[in-house]
Amino acid sequence: MSTHSFCKRAYSFFKAYPSASKLLLLSTCSGGGLLVYSDSSPSRRTLTADGQEIKKKKVVVLGSGWSGYSFLSHFNNPNYDVQVVSPRNFFLFTPLLPSVTNGTVEARSIVEPIRGLMRKKGFEYTEAECVKIDPSNKKIHCKSKDSTSLKGTTEFDMDYDILVIAVGAKPNTFNTPGVEEHAHFLKEADDALKIRRSVINCFERASLPDLTEEERKKIIHFVVVGGGPTGVEFSAELHDFLVEDVAKIYPKVQEFTRITLLEAGDHILNMFDKRITAFAEEKFQRDGIDLKTKSMVVGVTADEISTKERGSGEVVSEPYGMVVWSTGIGSRPVIKDFMHQIGQGQRRVLATDEWLRVEGCDSVYALGDTATINQRRVMEDIAAIFGKADKGETGTLNKKEFKGVVKDICQRYPQVELYLKKKKLRNIANLLKSANGDNTELSIETFKQALSEVDTQMKNLPATAQVASQQGKYLAKCFNKMEKCEKKPEGPLRFRGEGRHRFQPFRYRHFGSFAPLGGEQTAAELPGDWVSIGHSSQWLWYSVYASKLVSWRTRSLVVSDWVRRFIFGRDSSSI
Amino acid sequence: MSTHSFCKRAYSFFKAYPSASKLLLLSTCSGGGLLVYSDSSPSRRTLTADGQEIKKKKVVVLGSGWSGYSFLSHFNNPNYDVQVVSPRNFFLFTPLLPSVTNGTVEARSIVEPIRGLMRKKGFEYTEAECVKIDPSNKKIHCKSKDSTSLKGTTEFDMDYDILVIAVGAKPNTFNTPGVEEHAHFLKEADDALKIRRSVINCFERASLPDLTEEERKKIIHFVVVGGGPTGVEFSAELHDFLVEDVAKIYPKVQEFTRITLLEAGDHILNMFDKRITAFAEEKFQRDGIDLKTKSMVVGVTADEISTKERGSGEVVSEPYGMVVWSTGIGSRPVIKDFMHQIGQGQRRVLATDEWLRVEGCDSVYALGDTATINQRRVMEDIAAIFGKADKGETGTLNKKEFKGVVKDICQRYPQVELYLKKKKLRNIANLLKSANGDNTELSIETFKQALSEVDTQMKNLPATAQVASQQGKYLAKCFNKMEKCEKKPEGPLRFRGEGRHRFQPFRYRHFGSFAPLGGEQTAAELPGDWVSIGHSSQWLWYSVYASKLVSWRTRSLVVSDWVRRFIFGRDSSSI
Repeated sequence: MSTHSFCKRAYSFFKAYPSASKLLLLSTCSGGGLLVYSDSSPSRRTLTADGQEIKKKKVVVLGSGWSGYSFLSHFNNPNYDVQVVSPRNFFLFTPLLPSVTNGTVEARSIVEPIRGLMRKKGFEYTEAECVKIDPSNKKIHCKSKDSTSLKGTTEFDMDYDILVIAVGAKPNTFNTPGVEEHAHFLKEADDALKIRRSVINCFERASLPDLTEEERKKIIHFVVVGGGPTGVEFSAELHDFLVEDVAKIYPKVQEFTRITLLEAGDHILNMFDKRITAFAEEKFQRDGIDLKTKSMVVGVTADEISTKERGSGEVVSEPYGMVVWSTGIGSRPVIKDFMHQIGQGQRRVLATDEWLRVEGCDSVYALGDTATINQRRVMEDIAAIFGKADKGETGTLNKKEFKGVVKDICQRYPQVELYLKKKKLRNIANLLKSANGDNTELSIETFKQALSEVDTQMKNLPATAQVASQQGKYLAKCFNKMEKCEKKPEGPLRFRGEGRHRFQPFRYRHFGSFAPLGGEQTAAELPGDWVSIGHSSQWLWYSVYASKLVSWRTRSLVVSDWVRRFIFGRDSSSI
Repeated sequence: MSTHSFCKRAYSFFKAYPSASKLLLLSTCSGGGLLVYSDSSPSRRTLTADGQEIKKKKVVVLGSGWSGYSFLSHFNNPNYDVQVVSPRNFFLFTPLLPSVTNGTVEARSIVEPIRGLMRKKGFEYTEAECVKIDPSNKKIHCKSKDSTSLKGTTEFDMDYDILVIAVGAKPNTFNTPGVEEHAHFLKEADDALKIRRSVINCFERASLPDLTEEERKKIIHFVVVGGGPTGVEFSAELHDFLVEDVAKIYPKVQEFTRITLLEAGDHILNMFDKRITAFAEEKFQRDGIDLKTKSMVVGVTADEISTKERGSGEVVSEPYGMVVWSTGIGSRPVIKDFMHQIGQGQRRVLATDEWLRVEGCDSVYALGDTATINQRRVMEDIAAIFGKADKGETGTLNKKEFKGVVKDICQRYPQVELYLKKKKLRNIANLLKSANGDNTELSIETFKQALSEVDTQMKNLPATAQVASQQGKYLAKCFNKMEKCEKKPEGPLRFRGEGRHRFQPFRYRHFGSFAPLGGEQTAAELPGDWVSIGHSSQWLWYSVYASKLVSWRTRSLVVSDWVRRFIFGRDSSSI
């Protein structure tokens, strides 16, 4: 029993001094844990001064991914009842999913059970999938899931006062025939485990007796569709696995293996800096990964994958053993249906305003990959802005009048800041100066002209974990200060209405991105145009990811997985 | 990169000084690793003195479980080509399987990929299932397995010179209706993972809104059928999980949980010492596990399990959420078919002789749970033994004549030794003395009379990992000394034939058994009637199992799983 109590004591110690355990990590550069949640357990009842119980508003959160989990872990307002509905009773640390496909990291090491957070926060959780949102009755319709298929499912309804949709997206096959049936996706923990089994299965099948060389080559031809970070990382991990482990375990068939990476665009990793793209393409070429850009997949059968070359229009078919589809995301059916109900049926993705409120629907918020922010154009509001600023109603703005709105403009329209940054201007005054010269009075025409190009800087946020997680945190903080901001709004002026917006609109802060390229090399793009490629970024990657993992449990598991891989290699058992 | 090389160095250190790493283990009582395999890589060709290549005999081994893996890891004769066929490309350390069902240990921690051993030994491995044995043509017919169900299966034939059947057994439902459809088994890694998901799923379903108390009680009523070590250990692990983790994670439904353990016999753990049975029954009663002995399951539907009480004959039906069936084993279809072909169709289990050779079939051996040893009775051979011993053909045995065969009798008929042990006699001479008094000449009648009760001590070996592993090692050692023993047989006299048997017959040595009872308590039955129950045996259990794990990889993984469970508890994610 002494070891037992030692462990308990060690645990209490690390709980009391989290900084001590941080020293255990390799060289944690980023401060501990993006989503570490507070330990406070809010009481579930709120009483007024005279002891009456207040009817709390019920917030229903759909989903336990990046945005949902982030929202829940930052939510801290005892005046709301929080109810979570998700078919997954855990949070999945998706950036490490490609590592699971080859056994570099175990699936269980990158999941955090949601029940732990629920208990600490005093929230309710139901393992079910929302299959229909009924905004007119403020109800959702849910179906329990059954993972064992030995028992049926149960259906039930749930009321809400406020609904937070954080269900994420589903893979998009662009209606390419055969993809659903024959390709693997890489979005959920189960997908990664299936791919892992499938890779090993391909090698075992290729090792069967009585096969021709042709057949062996086909069986261990791995095709990855999509040159985004996931596709690239998966190809790199697979290549490492082939070089480091397969060569030893399957020496007879190793020579027949081939990895093909298909990308419809001109380059892989096209959201990254050009230097990174060039480095990655060159490294893949050197590694023998067959990189085919400008190739669009037009069909997949049980044995062949067909691509169309963008230049020539030629259609080529190739035999394959396994296809992984990691390109594009689409709306889930429940969201499509919801969009039809609220008049967004024509849109591709659910739209919210800058406060993450679903457009055309009260009391419903949407976070993460589920939705995009429909940014408001400055030009649409330009007359209203001018009118609001022109307090003296002179038809022109003097310096003081202009200064009165400049902060609100910047806050309300994030594209302004991006435009200034691009033009290398310090602030909006300089922008107007360049349009108006030394004139102290500003006419509406000059005002318009100066801001005319600002809207070109509007762009949708990428569908990344970073965006989703920041949105969850932002919305939780809004809820936390709801009562305070109702009395004293903190947002910018309402140019088209009265008073101020209650909250600041959501603004995304990019902290950089990583693209692991295999062979202990990673490309990193950090704020301030800082690009780093190589072994050092790999260690940065290890450190950042270790520190971003949501709990000490997952952190210690992932680090021990990495250590284990260094020592023993990857496991080839087909479990 | 320094950590990398540190790890590599640490690994080399532990490889060079295995005793050092043993110190890391808690208190290893048993010598390091039952199945640690040698590092020698035998060359795959053998040449005669004049440089001619000898045609090697091909040994085909079916299965990679305890007996197969043990055979392979001890096999060391370069004059044979070894080919392994198994649907599982890993060895599974089954004693820890119940721990996997609740997440105390991860499935991957208790498997060892077979490819590693193949590489070291220079053997061939094929991932396939043997679906038909054709002994008249010395061929097997195999089907490759497909774990992903995206691709079909391949079929092929394989020749053999010598076949070693080590395919194990399958669960036996005794044709109880509904068991196949509704119950979980606990034999393979997949079974354990399914049970784990199913347990969590039951708790999630019981936590759904709008359920009656009745329904919740039904969903989290766990029924375990079979009071053997597996059933008992699973019940105990499940109980620990409920008390240590569920109470925290599912506080609302915890009060409704119930575990029922059904056993058809009078007592659970009936192969153990009575003290252990009594302690286990008492502990389970105290823990609130509903123990029902003398209850035979007569049917399982999707919602209810029906049992028949042995005394009253009354049939009782109870609603349940999950049933785990862990009683009885039966022959696999491929073995049933094989038995029909070789004239063993009337038998329940495949029979071998004491040298593990399948009766009625040349060049085929069977190990482990696949077969039982059909022991030869002394009484059947008594005239032959007497005739062989009576060299002077006087019709009686004198002291010298008797001494000439006594060792061979003991070697050939293991029941003699057991009988002597039971009667507390030192050797066979004492036995005869008690029958013959001081008479120096022994007649055949007295000889018969003295040995008349010896055959009552014949009993089948239990279907355990310990037996299987010892059989694998025994057979491998026989093959290793094949050439030597062909020239100079080491076995006992052939009483019914000429000369001596080539090898000693297989003899089982019982090293004791464990039955973990939950709450850090284990019952241990060790040789010499030593029974130990409690926390100390739990630590003994940890040490023995850690040391018996087949590799340093699995050993370190299992120990780290145990440590993790102490610190963080079990994971409730439904992956």
